[in-house]
Amino acid sequence: MSKRTTGPEIERLIQLLAKLPGLGPRSARRAALHLIKNRERLLEPLSAAIAEARDKVTVCSECGNVDTVDPCTLCTDPRRDRSILCVVEEVGDLWALERAGAWNGLYHVLGGTLSAIEGVRPEDLAISGLLERAGTGSVKEVVLALNATVEGQTTAHYITERLKGLGVSASRLAHGVPVGGELDYLDEGTLTQAMRARRPL
Amino acid sequence: MSKRTTGPEIERLIQLLAKLPGLGPRSARRAALHLIKNRERLLEPLSAAIAEARDKVTVCSECGNVDTVDPCTLCTDPRRDRSILCVVEEVGDLWALERAGAWNGLYHVLGGTLSAIEGVRPEDLAISGLLERAGTGSVKEVVLALNATVEGQTTAHYITERLKGLGVSASRLAHGVPVGGELDYLDEGTLTQAMRARRPL
Repeated sequence: MSKRTTGPEIERLIQLLAKLPGLGPRSARRAALHLIKNRERLLEPLSAAIAEARDKVTVCSECGNVDTVDPCTLCTDPRRDRSILCVVEEVGDLWALERAGAWNGLYHVLGGTLSAIEGVRPEDLAISGLLERAGTGSVKEVVLALNATVEGQTTAHYITERLKGLGVSASRLAHGVPVGGELDYLDEGTLTQAMRARRPL
Repeated sequence: MSKRTTGPEIERLIQLLAKLPGLGPRSARRAALHLIKNRERLLEPLSAAIAEARDKVTVCSECGNVDTVDPCTLCTDPRRDRSILCVVEEVGDLWALERAGAWNGLYHVLGGTLSAIEGVRPEDLAISGLLERAGTGSVKEVVLALNATVEGQTTAHYITERLKGLGVSASRLAHGVPVGGELDYLDEGTLTQAMRARRPL
């Protein structure tokens, strides 16, 4: 769009919206127009919500979750089991497990995975904090809920080695057929793992 | 996501982002996390840009474009031909024509199309304003750049009828093969129109 079409303020808004994951230059323009056309229903509430997020949101110094309080709501929830820790790569993974209601212990967000290619070393991730939390004596089990990718599994292996001697047991998520998944569309690795871990009915 | 996972401020941000075209609930969560993780590079600038859009953006009372001044930058540009008017459905269409550099006259945004099913009548669109502008004597030609849909063409037909007697000529965009388009993938209607309107080489 040429600079003459509309004001530089709208151009700037479009450019920033285009940086959001899932929005490209074209959909960012549509989103900006949608915002402008829905001033009261969307533009003003979103302006307030983003300003509030900017002012209030922080990263939990215990687990790495994002929240408006530190320690976060999960870390201070008395109903959660403080003796079990679930290690995830990113906050989005934590949210996914919470949506599923799959975990009632505490979390630890690594902030990524080890990667020789991208130069991510153990000290670039929240691994020393994890070892500290796991070594206090109050933690019994650490579940490594990392992605089933090469990087995720390399990181899980590294952490498992580092946890040895701390008196905690390490585990990983089960592999298998996704619920609702069709065998015909599954890769051979998953099928092999699902067969090996078959359960009696 | 359960309410316990994160603060209500982040939930609210996710809900509002999910209302943007192109973002669903899942991508809105990713976008919110991306914003929070890139505070200085993205969250703060976007907060400022949205607040500025909220405070400054207005709709041009002449043509319906959105801008920070009224009349808009296009309507007051002395280099543009004020004797030709291009009628579009939405502001996004105006932006598309400007990006293409396809038009050097003025615009008129209808704000939609006539639709019996959705109950959109002529008085719901900016048609009376268009007839007023077209009837001042300074306009020679009105190009109806409406979508090639049933609604767009019905609206174009209605406007053409209303323009009769005002001493302006009406035209529409040419139909044909899109530049870069493959014949094999085009519908029969487009191919027929492209063949009928064939040009000598």
